[in-house]
Amino acid sequence: MPQQPARFGEITGIRPGHEFRNRLELWSAGVHRQTQAGISARQGQGAESIVVSGGYEDDLDQGTWLLYTGKGGRSAETGKQVADQTLTGSNLELARNQVLGLPIRVTRKVTENGLTFYRYGGLYRVSSYWQEQGRSGYKIWRFRLEMLPDELFSEAEVAVTATPDLFQAEEPVAAYNPAPRRLITTLRIVRDTAVSRQVKQLYSYQCQVCATRLNSAAGPYAEAAHVQPLGAPHHGPDVLSNVLCLCPNHHILFDLGSFAVRNDFSLLGLDGRLTLHRQHRLEPLFLKYHREHYFRATEATSAAE
Amino acid sequence: MPQQPARFGEITGIRPGHEFRNRLELWSAGVHRQTQAGISARQGQGAESIVVSGGYEDDLDQGTWLLYTGKGGRSAETGKQVADQTLTGSNLELARNQVLGLPIRVTRKVTENGLTFYRYGGLYRVSSYWQEQGRSGYKIWRFRLEMLPDELFSEAEVAVTATPDLFQAEEPVAAYNPAPRRLITTLRIVRDTAVSRQVKQLYSYQCQVCATRLNSAAGPYAEAAHVQPLGAPHHGPDVLSNVLCLCPNHHILFDLGSFAVRNDFSLLGLDGRLTLHRQHRLEPLFLKYHREHYFRATEATSAAE
Repeated sequence: MPQQPARFGEITGIRPGHEFRNRLELWSAGVHRQTQAGISARQGQGAESIVVSGGYEDDLDQGTWLLYTGKGGRSAETGKQVADQTLTGSNLELARNQVLGLPIRVTRKVTENGLTFYRYGGLYRVSSYWQEQGRSGYKIWRFRLEMLPDELFSEAEVAVTATPDLFQAEEPVAAYNPAPRRLITTLRIVRDTAVSRQVKQLYSYQCQVCATRLNSAAGPYAEAAHVQPLGAPHHGPDVLSNVLCLCPNHHILFDLGSFAVRNDFSLLGLDGRLTLHRQHRLEPLFLKYHREHYFRATEATSAAE
Repeated sequence: MPQQPARFGEITGIRPGHEFRNRLELWSAGVHRQTQAGISARQGQGAESIVVSGGYEDDLDQGTWLLYTGKGGRSAETGKQVADQTLTGSNLELARNQVLGLPIRVTRKVTENGLTFYRYGGLYRVSSYWQEQGRSGYKIWRFRLEMLPDELFSEAEVAVTATPDLFQAEEPVAAYNPAPRRLITTLRIVRDTAVSRQVKQLYSYQCQVCATRLNSAAGPYAEAAHVQPLGAPHHGPDVLSNVLCLCPNHHILFDLGSFAVRNDFSLLGLDGRLTLHRQHRLEPLFLKYHREHYFRATEATSAAE
């Protein structure tokens, strides 16, 4: 991968719906800086753009959100998956977009009236990623991309449009600083359901992993993680047996697959076990789903001694 | 305050723009269940709705977001602030909406062509609250409300419309469960700027308070807190001297005013001091702003021994 700095955000003058005749035009406009590959990324910096062309049998495009399959393991001749994909290269860069909260430009290859062209779709965020067995039987990496909500809070500092000229920040910057100063990105959205609120009450807002409770003048704060996530394509249910009450730190670690829970409720990737309330029955099938799709052995937390 | 369960979310059939002739109609429709008060809340459960009537000299309404002043300390005769407000009663319930991530129905009192009526504005979230000196010189509590982003991810589980009939969840629930099963609320949105990314690089994603670093297969995760917040009415700048690199737990505690930083960088509300990189100069004016507007002495975290 070339090592020029990655460019995130919208390209000036190119709004969702803008059409390009071919990949070369898309490349010249700066929207997608690869002429063949579906992902344009810079090593260690994240993925700046993708082209969705239905090239993978496992893709799913719902407009405001889509499932994108990673690269690798595909036969050039048949277009089918013939080997496992790994979380390396462009796939790893796409995953970085989630932890770094970076937007990704999405362009779609479109065929209408016998004509094939490319339509820019706008900015999306990578909300989650996981591995699963594709229809071919081989492991694939899947990324869920969601359209960035319209920036309703229309003040100067939330301008999402970025011009390439602004990419040099004026103050001394660390080596990695791809975004212009006016680009505010959504790093993380935490949602709650009625069942989330139930489980937090049950544990008095204490984390089932570390027993921490965050207190504030307006009451305690905790987050609930759905073990098998809600929504397509996971369709985990919103029930008590599918949620954990966690502090924000452990919620993120759980979502990112840095730790998981065994069927006997001991922890994978961390020492110890979950604290379980006698009224809280966790369903092992959901725990297994999370282990298989999310857990990546890694050193979950580190701290200076 | 009456002790029936609070009702959150939209009232069936009443969409933004719906007009009501007077407060009695608004009350009968269930949109705002108080005939005089500006805030409708149930003790310990949060605030279900407000009426914005410009009754307070410090209010500011920008449509997609607004600043709402708390209750109390106002003279019935002059309408002016004559005493400090406290974070109790309805004010405390409004603050709970933030930590609990509950939506609030906003209705505006409108005068057009000599007629006064009420227009329902939709669902908002309480994104932050703080105290300051009002124009009167007395302390007031201020709440920033932001319109909930359109739910773009239109699948069954993100339906924000709730019917009162569904408020009884089918499974046994904890005492506090005001929301119907299909109501998904936004608990927290974490945003990032270019400067946020800089400060995280500077600290190698380690929390300046507790030195924790969260690791994942796609890289480390940390959050940046703007000491004096961005956006109106705080207008804190997006500069290195106004940000802290924090783990999610300490970021929330900071935003909620459970701890603060003294000008000598020792901590208020927690033991110890901030870790400071030699290239990171924190501006005491911003630290002071946060202390004065947000810090509420409380036991920041607790854990079972």
